[in-house]
Amino acid sequence: MTTARTMIPALDDSVRVHGQTVHILDRRVFPETLSWVVSESAEDVARAIREMVTQSSGPLFAAYAGMEITALQVAGLKLAQAQTRMQQAGAALASARPTNNHPREAVDHVLGAVQSARSTGELVDRAVEAAQSGPVAYRARSYALGRETAALLADGSRILTHCWMDSYLIELVRAATDAGKSFEWVATETRPYLQGARLTAHTLAELGQSVTLITDGMGAAALSPGSSIGPIDALVTAADRVSLDGSVVNKVGTLGLAIAATAFDVPFYALVQAPDENAPTADDIVIEQRDPAEVLHTLGRRTASGLVTEAWYPAFDVTPGRFVSKIITDRGAFAPSDVHRYWSDARGRARPNSAV
Amino acid sequence: MTTARTMIPALDDSVRVHGQTVHILDRRVFPETLSWVVSESAEDVARAIREMVTQSSGPLFAAYAGMEITALQVAGLKLAQAQTRMQQAGAALASARPTNNHPREAVDHVLGAVQSARSTGELVDRAVEAAQSGPVAYRARSYALGRETAALLADGSRILTHCWMDSYLIELVRAATDAGKSFEWVATETRPYLQGARLTAHTLAELGQSVTLITDGMGAAALSPGSSIGPIDALVTAADRVSLDGSVVNKVGTLGLAIAATAFDVPFYALVQAPDENAPTADDIVIEQRDPAEVLHTLGRRTASGLVTEAWYPAFDVTPGRFVSKIITDRGAFAPSDVHRYWSDARGRARPNSAV
Repeated sequence: MTTARTMIPALDDSVRVHGQTVHILDRRVFPETLSWVVSESAEDVARAIREMVTQSSGPLFAAYAGMEITALQVAGLKLAQAQTRMQQAGAALASARPTNNHPREAVDHVLGAVQSARSTGELVDRAVEAAQSGPVAYRARSYALGRETAALLADGSRILTHCWMDSYLIELVRAATDAGKSFEWVATETRPYLQGARLTAHTLAELGQSVTLITDGMGAAALSPGSSIGPIDALVTAADRVSLDGSVVNKVGTLGLAIAATAFDVPFYALVQAPDENAPTADDIVIEQRDPAEVLHTLGRRTASGLVTEAWYPAFDVTPGRFVSKIITDRGAFAPSDVHRYWSDARGRARPNSAV
Repeated sequence: MTTARTMIPALDDSVRVHGQTVHILDRRVFPETLSWVVSESAEDVARAIREMVTQSSGPLFAAYAGMEITALQVAGLKLAQAQTRMQQAGAALASARPTNNHPREAVDHVLGAVQSARSTGELVDRAVEAAQSGPVAYRARSYALGRETAALLADGSRILTHCWMDSYLIELVRAATDAGKSFEWVATETRPYLQGARLTAHTLAELGQSVTLITDGMGAAALSPGSSIGPIDALVTAADRVSLDGSVVNKVGTLGLAIAATAFDVPFYALVQAPDENAPTADDIVIEQRDPAEVLHTLGRRTASGLVTEAWYPAFDVTPGRFVSKIITDRGAFAPSDVHRYWSDARGRARPNSAV
């Protein structure tokens, strides 16, 4: 179990700042190929995020790194110019992809820190500090989510997960290990990008966990009573966004698994640091449509018949709260119908680990 | 519409007898590569079925062809020896794969025809006649299923389908065309073999149908209200087997789609020529477990992380009758709870098109 506690998986250190450049591990080809995409500006980083060089928690780390190099690049400018350039960089990063809020949170945190800077030097120092402390606080809050989740699961539980929970997954394994628990994992491969087959299963193996891979269509069969891979004790996924009415927006495929889990009385826990204060319902969240050509291909190779021209690729789906057991936040676990209380109960008090 | 009526898709003519050999179109690489596997004996044909050279309705046609060449090969033997060899060939074909009953039905039909032959010449003639008339009757009954199904669907319906319904799909399109209806299709890609992406979508395109491909995880999102690809009017699949209590055994992934369809009030129609008289419940049907390595690969290329060693591949799943709207047979559409009446109501009268 020391493995899970002390091991740093490759994907837990996949965004690095070198001088005034950002190096992002290319998750589109990892782990088959270890390749780093180098960005020389915030706009380059935004493009890398849009092109899926990194995803899940990756864009948060990448956005922080993009703001950090921008701060280093404005060191020679007058304060007003430096502020303008920081705003510009932030706008590019925050709008890279529409559904996940992570880059926007990172940008807001850094811009908030530099708002009242009285000199360019102070702006640079504050920006760099914020860009470096943000990810540390994010990991600490991810660990808190992991601890909450582990508390809901007995030692030896078998967990079905979908797509790639990134920091939440890594910190859940660490928190479980600290609590003296170990889990068995069943991971969906998560087409079209195969994040499950490449990122989740790989990282769980790095962490010394037992992991079994299934295709996306096998989830309901795994969850059903008497399944030869079961019983599954819980479905656990991240959420890219959660609306205040308790709807979970996550990688397409989550909805089907959640409905099957509900049908077979298996709890579904969705992890998110906080619900979206600006999204009363799921209708207030933009669902990104990605290039359908990705569905016709697998890792760059055409796998559908050449006669097929039409495909559909919503990157996310919306799971209504009635198919969700608990939404696990950095302020604890909420029933979906209560998740709006994350904000209303907290009026007037600081958010814990409020670095983001 | 003449396209759908007169076009013969490649997969509708994918098992051929040439002399004393069987040529089977290799569905593992179709349509990227057009390759025929040549079998010189019934045992060769059985191996091809086991190795998934052909599947769905394919093994029925292949088993008939295997019995036909066996009959030709025994022409020089004494009657008793010829009967023994026919039995032997039939046993090999019937046991090629455990879940789908098609080869066994074909074998029983041919062996039934030759049982009372009084000479080897008569045995050969009867076997060849049965082996050639069986597939014709099978297609006629598939057309009957298609007509029943088309009657349940309005012109312009959008249908979600999974895996590859083979003759049922082709005849459903023909029956709909004859009824003056056209449908739009949404097909799952159906990992790990990608039957949907390669066989279903290809054949629908050959038939001039509108078809949109999705990954296996997108089914629930497509079925959900307000989906940008919807509304979906029905989920329609084949069934490899149906037990007398109305459980549907079909390609893994059917269960999850059926549960989601039920949750969103979309009807699910499962097509099967007849329920299995020998399977009171789904527990009486063996679910084939295939090589998990197939989940780690896509069309022969490793697509999962090299660190992942464990995978799970049940070829089929079981959808309980409560998630099925109608089971459509060659004697009409039944509620799942009534499907046992297919047999009990028919006591004493011949099965329609009773060639199989």
